[in-house]
Amino acid sequence: MSNCSQNKMTKNSANLRVRLPALIFALEVMIIVLYAVFVTYDDHTNALLQTNMTKPMENAVYQDYPFFADIQMMIFIGFGCLLSFFQRYGFGGMVFNFLTATFAIQWAILIQGFFHFYYDGKIHLGVINLINAEFACAVVLISFGAVLGKTSPVQLLVSLFEILFEVPVFGVAEWIVVKYLKINDAGGSILIHVFACYFGLGVTFILYRPSLNDGHSKECTSYQSDMLSVLGTLFLWVFWPSFNCALTLRGDDQHRAILHTFIGLSASTLTAFALSAMLNKNGKLSMADVQNVTLAGGVTVGASVDMMITPAAAYALGMLGCTACMLGYKYLSPFLARRLRVQDQCGIHNLHGLTGLISTVAAICGILWASEETYGPSLYETFSYRAPQKGDPQLAELQELIPGLKAGLGRTAKEQALYQLAALGSTIALAAVGGMLTGLLLKLPYLASPSDEFCFDDELFFNVPADYNQAPVAQDLGCTETQDKHVLGNERNQHCIPQLHWFDRIIDILYPFCVFVNKCSLAC
Amino acid sequence: MSNCSQNKMTKNSANLRVRLPALIFALEVMIIVLYAVFVTYDDHTNALLQTNMTKPMENAVYQDYPFFADIQMMIFIGFGCLLSFFQRYGFGGMVFNFLTATFAIQWAILIQGFFHFYYDGKIHLGVINLINAEFACAVVLISFGAVLGKTSPVQLLVSLFEILFEVPVFGVAEWIVVKYLKINDAGGSILIHVFACYFGLGVTFILYRPSLNDGHSKECTSYQSDMLSVLGTLFLWVFWPSFNCALTLRGDDQHRAILHTFIGLSASTLTAFALSAMLNKNGKLSMADVQNVTLAGGVTVGASVDMMITPAAAYALGMLGCTACMLGYKYLSPFLARRLRVQDQCGIHNLHGLTGLISTVAAICGILWASEETYGPSLYETFSYRAPQKGDPQLAELQELIPGLKAGLGRTAKEQALYQLAALGSTIALAAVGGMLTGLLLKLPYLASPSDEFCFDDELFFNVPADYNQAPVAQDLGCTETQDKHVLGNERNQHCIPQLHWFDRIIDILYPFCVFVNKCSLAC
Amino acid sequence: MSNCSQNKMTKNSANLRVRLPALIFALEVMIIVLYAVFVTYDDHTNALLQTNMTKPMENAVYQDYPFFADIQMMIFIGFGCLLSFFQRYGFGGMVFNFLTATFAIQWAILIQGFFHFYYDGKIHLGVINLINAEFACAVVLISFGAVLGKTSPVQLLVSLFEILFEVPVFGVAEWIVVKYLKINDAGGSILIHVFACYFGLGVTFILYRPSLNDGHSKECTSYQSDMLSVLGTLFLWVFWPSFNCALTLRGDDQHRAILHTFIGLSASTLTAFALSAMLNKNGKLSMADVQNVTLAGGVTVGASVDMMITPAAAYALGMLGCTACMLGYKYLSPFLARRLRVQDQCGIHNLHGLTGLISTVAAICGILWASEETYGPSLYETFSYRAPQKGDPQLAELQELIPGLKAGLGRTAKEQALYQLAALGSTIALAAVGGMLTGLLLKLPYLASPSDEFCFDDELFFNVPADYNQAPVAQDLGCTETQDKHVLGNERNQHCIPQLHWFDRIIDILYPFCVFVNKCSLAC
Repeated sequence: MSNCSQNKMTKNSANLRVRLPALIFALEVMIIVLYAVFVTYDDHTNALLQTNMTKPMENAVYQDYPFFADIQMMIFIGFGCLLSFFQRYGFGGMVFNFLTATFAIQWAILIQGFFHFYYDGKIHLGVINLINAEFACAVVLISFGAVLGKTSPVQLLVSLFEILFEVPVFGVAEWIVVKYLKINDAGGSILIHVFACYFGLGVTFILYRPSLNDGHSKECTSYQSDMLSVLGTLFLWVFWPSFNCALTLRGDDQHRAILHTFIGLSASTLTAFALSAMLNKNGKLSMADVQNVTLAGGVTVGASVDMMITPAAAYALGMLGCTACMLGYKYLSPFLARRLRVQDQCGIHNLHGLTGLISTVAAICGILWASEETYGPSLYETFSYRAPQKGDPQLAELQELIPGLKAGLGRTAKEQALYQLAALGSTIALAAVGGMLTGLLLKLPYLASPSDEFCFDDELFFNVPADYNQAPVAQDLGCTETQDKHVLGNERNQHCIPQLHWFDRIIDILYPFCVFVNKCSLAC
Repeated sequence: MSNCSQNKMTKNSANLRVRLPALIFALEVMIIVLYAVFVTYDDHTNALLQTNMTKPMENAVYQDYPFFADIQMMIFIGFGCLLSFFQRYGFGGMVFNFLTATFAIQWAILIQGFFHFYYDGKIHLGVINLINAEFACAVVLISFGAVLGKTSPVQLLVSLFEILFEVPVFGVAEWIVVKYLKINDAGGSILIHVFACYFGLGVTFILYRPSLNDGHSKECTSYQSDMLSVLGTLFLWVFWPSFNCALTLRGDDQHRAILHTFIGLSASTLTAFALSAMLNKNGKLSMADVQNVTLAGGVTVGASVDMMITPAAAYALGMLGCTACMLGYKYLSPFLARRLRVQDQCGIHNLHGLTGLISTVAAICGILWASEETYGPSLYETFSYRAPQKGDPQLAELQELIPGLKAGLGRTAKEQALYQLAALGSTIALAAVGGMLTGLLLKLPYLASPSDEFCFDDELFFNVPADYNQAPVAQDLGCTETQDKHVLGNERNQHCIPQLHWFDRIIDILYPFCVFVNKCSLAC
Repeated sequence: MSNCSQNKMTKNSANLRVRLPALIFALEVMIIVLYAVFVTYDDHTNALLQTNMTKPMENAVYQDYPFFADIQMMIFIGFGCLLSFFQRYGFGGMVFNFLTATFAIQWAILIQGFFHFYYDGKIHLGVINLINAEFACAVVLISFGAVLGKTSPVQLLVSLFEILFEVPVFGVAEWIVVKYLKINDAGGSILIHVFACYFGLGVTFILYRPSLNDGHSKECTSYQSDMLSVLGTLFLWVFWPSFNCALTLRGDDQHRAILHTFIGLSASTLTAFALSAMLNKNGKLSMADVQNVTLAGGVTVGASVDMMITPAAAYALGMLGCTACMLGYKYLSPFLARRLRVQDQCGIHNLHGLTGLISTVAAICGILWASEETYGPSLYETFSYRAPQKGDPQLAELQELIPGLKAGLGRTAKEQALYQLAALGSTIALAAVGGMLTGLLLKLPYLASPSDEFCFDDELFFNVPADYNQAPVAQDLGCTETQDKHVLGNERNQHCIPQLHWFDRIIDILYPFCVFVNKCSLAC
C-alpha cells in the first residue's frame, strides 16, 4: 500500500476514533432519554395489570416469542452470514450487520411506538413491539444491500445516519398503508420488500460512483466466504415461514402462511438451480444464485400468503418470482447500472423489487377471487375491510356466526384492488424520495467519502489477524472469476459507464439546499 | 489439468447446462400439475371449516410448527454443514443437500399424501404433512451418504432420479409398517434409519467403482471443512430430541422421548471420545469420529424412545450404539468394501444400520417388559395395538379410565415382538431391493458416469472463487492423513479390491432388462 | 518440530490413549449405576401418573422444552463457536466444549437432582432438570474460559476432573442461595456468572504459568476463526433472552425478562462498538471486543430481569455493564495478571464478574424500590419472600386477590437487600475457595502439565488435516497483532511478571496436604 493512501487511511481512522463513539453516545443518550420519558410496559408486561382473572399462560408472550426468536435468527445470523460473502469484507459484512441491526431495532421501537403503540402519553412495550421493530430492521438491512461495502470508509457513521432517516420514513409508510389504506400484505412484500428496495435504490442512485464501474479488485468472494454466505441463506430459508406468518391472524391464517411460504421457497429453490445452470457459462452453478435467487419465492408469496390461493398457486408464484429474479440479475441489473446509474450491489431490485411487484399482483388476484364460498364467514376476518361497517344490519348477522368479528369498512373486492395499488404506489414514491433525500444528506461534506481504494476492505475498520494479508486477492490471481461474472452480468459487478449527465445537474441544484437544511438543523 | 480431461469436463458441463434445467422443469411441471389436481387444504388450514366453535389457538399448527422448524434446522443446516466435510467438495456437500432436500420434500408431500392423507379424492395438506415429508427427506439424505461425492459428474441428475425412485419405495415401506404391521418406532429407527441405510447400500453396491478402491487424491478434509462439519453435527445433536419426539403421542410420551434422546446422545458422545482416543493411532481424536459417532445414541434410542425404559437404559443404549457404530467404522466397513463390494462413503451402515438394529432389539425388549404396573391404563395408548378390539367388553372398562381411548387390535406383547421383527425384515428387504433397482437405473447410458478424476470436486459444478485452486490438495502435501486413515480403517477410505466377480454376472443379466424397461417408459 | 519435543508429545499422547478412555469409562459406569439406582421419572414423564384428569397439552414439557432447546443452542453452538477463536485451537475450542458440556450436564443431573429433585428416595427427572443442568453446564463453560487452551496437554482429563469438582460446589452454592437465602436472581447473574467467574479465577490463580507471561506464539486468531467466533457470539446474543427467562415465573414476569434482556443486550452492543473504536489504536474495532463485550448487557440485567425496573433502566444497565466490562479488559485484566498472578485467558472477570457485581447492586435497588403501587398484589409473587408467613391474617387477604399465592417469609425489602448481599458473599467465597482447591488437585503429579510449547495447539489431540501445518503461524508472520494487543492490554495476553512470591509459600504449605488427601482418596 502506498505511503499516501496509508496516510489517508490513518486520517480516516483517526476520525472514526472520535466520530464513531461521539455519534453512538449521542444516539444512546437520545434513546435513553426518550425511553425514560415515553416508554412503559404494555398490558401483558405490566405487573400491576395482572389480576386474579389473568392466566399467566395466556400472556401474549407465549404466542409472540417463538416467532420473535425465529426472526432474530434471520436478522442476526441469516443476514449476518449472507452479507459476509466478500473475501476481504467478511468482518464488515457480519459485524456491521450486527451493529446496524441493533441500532435499527432500538430506533424502530421508538418510531413505530409513536405511530402504533402510543396512548395515554406513553409507548407501550411488549414482545409484539420487538417483532414490529425487527421488521423495520429487515427493511434497513435489505436496503443496505444496495450499497454494501462501498458507501464510504466512514461507513459506520453513514449507516447509522441512514438508519436514523430510513426508519421514520418507513414508519410513515407503514402508518399510511396499515392504518389508512388497510391492505392485505401479511408477509410484508409491499411494505417491507418493495419499500426497502426502492429506498436502497434511491440512496445508491445518489451515491453513484462511476469509478467503481469497472469492478473492484477486492470485489471477489473466497471459498470460505461463499460457504458462510450460503449458510446465511439457509438460515433465512428455514425461518422465512415464521417471518411471513408472524403478524397474520392466529389459527388457520397463520397455518396457511407457513404452508405457502414453504411451498413457494421450495419451488423457487428448484427453479433457481435450473436457471443457474441454464444461464451461466458452461452450465456451472453460480454460488451468487444459490445465495440469493433461491429465496425469491419467500417474497413472492408474501402479500397473499394467508389467502386461500391453493398450494399449486403458491408453487407457481415461487417459480414465477424466481424466474423474474434471475432474469433481473442477468439482464435488468446491468441495464440499471449502465443506463440509470443505479449500482445495485447485491441486486436487491431483483430479489425484493421484482418479486414484490409480482406479489402485489398476486394479492390483487387473491382479493378479487375471494368469496364466501371459499372462505365462509372467515372472509370478513382475513379481509377485515370487507366486513360491513358499524351499524350495518349485516354486521349483526355475521357476528352471530363469528362472535368476535369487528366492524369493517364495507369495501368491495374491486375497491380493495385499487387500495392495494395505491399502497404500492405510495410505498414506492415515499421510499424512492426518502432514499434519494437520505443519499443527499449522506453526501454532506463531513461524511465525505474518500477514494474507492478502501471499499470492500476490512482492514480499514478492524484490527485484522495476521493471516488477513496472506490471502491471495483477486488482483494477484488474475481474478478470472470477476471477469466471468462481468460477462455473465452477474449481480456482483454490473457497473458500467453512466449515461445520465442531466441528472447530475438536478443534484447540483438540490445540493446547496440540502447543505442549507443541514446547517439549520445544526444551528437549532 | 490435462487438455483431454478439460475437454471431457466441458462436455459433461455442457450436458448439465441442458439436462439439469430440462429435468428440473419437467419435474416442476409434473409436481405443479399434481398439486393443482390433487392437493387441497386440510381441516386446520381450510378457512371454510373454521366455525364459531373453532378456537384459533387450538389449531394444529401450534403443536406441529415448533417441531417442524427444528427438523428443518436439522435437514438444511445440520445435514448441509455435516456433508461439506471434503476440502474440495464443500459447495457440493452443502448446496446439493439444499437442492435434493427441497426436491425430496416436494415429492414426498405427494407420495406420502397419496398413502396417508388422501380422502375425498384429494390430498389434504397441513404442517403435519411437511413434518412427514421431512422424515422422508431425511431418509433420502441419509442414503445419499453412501455415495456422497462419487456417483457421477452428472450427480445432480442422478440425485434427482434417485429421489424420484426412493421416495415411493419409502412410501410403500411406511404404509406397510405404519398401517398394516402397526409397530412401535417413535423415532423412526427402523423405518427411517434402517430403510435409508439399506437403500443406500443397495445403490452403492450396484454403483461400485473399483478404481476408487485405493482412495482418491481429493478425498481429504481441510481444517475449515472439518470445523463446519462438526458444526453440522452439533445442529443435528441439539435438535435430535425434536426429531425423535415429533410424531409421538402428546404429553408424557413426548416428554419421555425428549429425555431419552438427550440422555442417549449424551452417553454416546462421551463414549465416542473415549473410543476415538482408544482406537486411533497415538491416542489422537479423529474429527470423523466426532462428526459421526457422537450421534449414534440418537438412533439407538429411537424405536423405544417413548417407552418407560428408565433413564439408565437410555444411557446404556447410547453407550452400546456408539460402541457398535465405532467398531463398525473400524472393522466392518473395510470388510464390506473388501469382501462385499459395498463402498459406504460416509459409513451409514455404522451410524444408521447397526444402531437401528440395536434399537429394534431394544424396542422388542421394551414391548415385552411393558405392563399395566408400569404404565397404568396409558399402556393402551403408547402400545395402541394392545388395546382390546372393538366390541370387547374390556374396551368399555378401559374407556372409563381413559375417555378418548380407541379400539386396538388386542395383540399380546409377544405377538407384537414378531410384528416388530416382520417390520424390520420387510423394511430391509424393500430397501435393499429398491436400492439395487435404483442403482441399476442410475447406470443407464444417458446417466453414464465418466472418469473418477472428477469425483469430490466442486469445480465441475460451480463457478469457484479464485482461491479455490490455491488451496493445497492432499496429493501435493503427500496427504499423510489419508494414509493414516487408510491404516486405521477410517470410514472415509476403506476401498479395497473386490472379491465378488459372480455378482457382476447377475448385473450383466439384469442390465438389458433394465434398459428395456427404461426404453418402454420413454416410449410411453 | 524438534525430535525431543516430538518424543514428549508422543509420550503424552500415548498417555491420552490409555487415560482418557479409562477415565471416561469409569465416569460412565459411575453415572449409569447412579442413574439406575436413583433416577426415575417425574410426574410429567411417568406414564403411570397420567389419569383421565391429566390433559396431555398441559404437560410441563410444552412450557419447558422451547427454552431448553434455545439454551442448548447457546451451550453447544454458541459457546462452541465462540471458544474456537484461536487459529490453531479451533478443533479444541469447539470439540472440547462439546465433550465438557455433555459430561457436565450428565453429572449435574445427578448432583442437582440430589439437591433439588430428590424425594421418596429417588431423583425425579423431567425436562426441567435438563434446563437446570444446562445452567450448571454454563457455569462450567464460563469458568473454563479462564484457562482455555493452556491448562495442560492432558487438558481433556483435567477438564473432566474440574467438572467433577466444580458441579458439586456449584450444587452447594445453589442450594444455599435458592433454598436458604431465597434471593432474586432470575437470570443467574449472581449464582451462575459470579460463581463461574470466581471459580475460574481460583483455578487459574493456582495453575499460574509464569512462562506464558510474554504471550505465546500460537495465541493468535485467524480470519476464519474470528468469523466463527463472532457467529458464536451472535447465537448467544439471539438466545440470551431465553436463558434469562427460562426459570422466571410464567406470564408477565417472563415477558419482562425477555424485554429487559433484549434491551440490555442492544444497549451494550452499541456501547461496545463505541468503546472499541475509542480505546483501540487508530480507532479500529477489535474483533475480541465484538465477540465478548457486546454480551455484557445480558449478564448485567440478569438479577433484576423480571422486576418492573422500566425499559430505560434496562438500557442504562446494558450501557453500564458494557463500559465496566470494556474498562476491565483494558485496565483491570493486565493488573490482575501483573499483580495478582491471575491469568484470565478469556477475560471472564470482565464479562461475568464485574457485570455480575453491577447486576447484584441493580437487583438490590430494584428490591428496595419495589412497592404495591408498582406491582399490585403480584409483588408477593415476584418477591415471594415478602409474602406474609403462614398463619398471618394478611396472607388470607392477599390470597383472595391472588388465589394461588403461597405463604412467604414476611421479609421486608431492606432485610432482603442484606440477604442478596449475603448470597453474593457466600457465592464468591464458595467459588473462590472451591476453585483454588480444584486447582490444587489439578496440580497433582499424575495430571502433571508438560512444557508450554503445546498450549493452544490442536495437533496434540487431533489427527489434523493436511492443510493444518500449511497455515502461517503468528511467529512466522511477525505476529504484529499480538504485539498490538499486548500494548493495548487486550484480554488475550495480559501476562506479566508476577509480584506475589509470598503466595507461592502458602501453596507450598498447602500442597503436601493436598497430595495427602489425594492419596487417601485413592487408598479408599
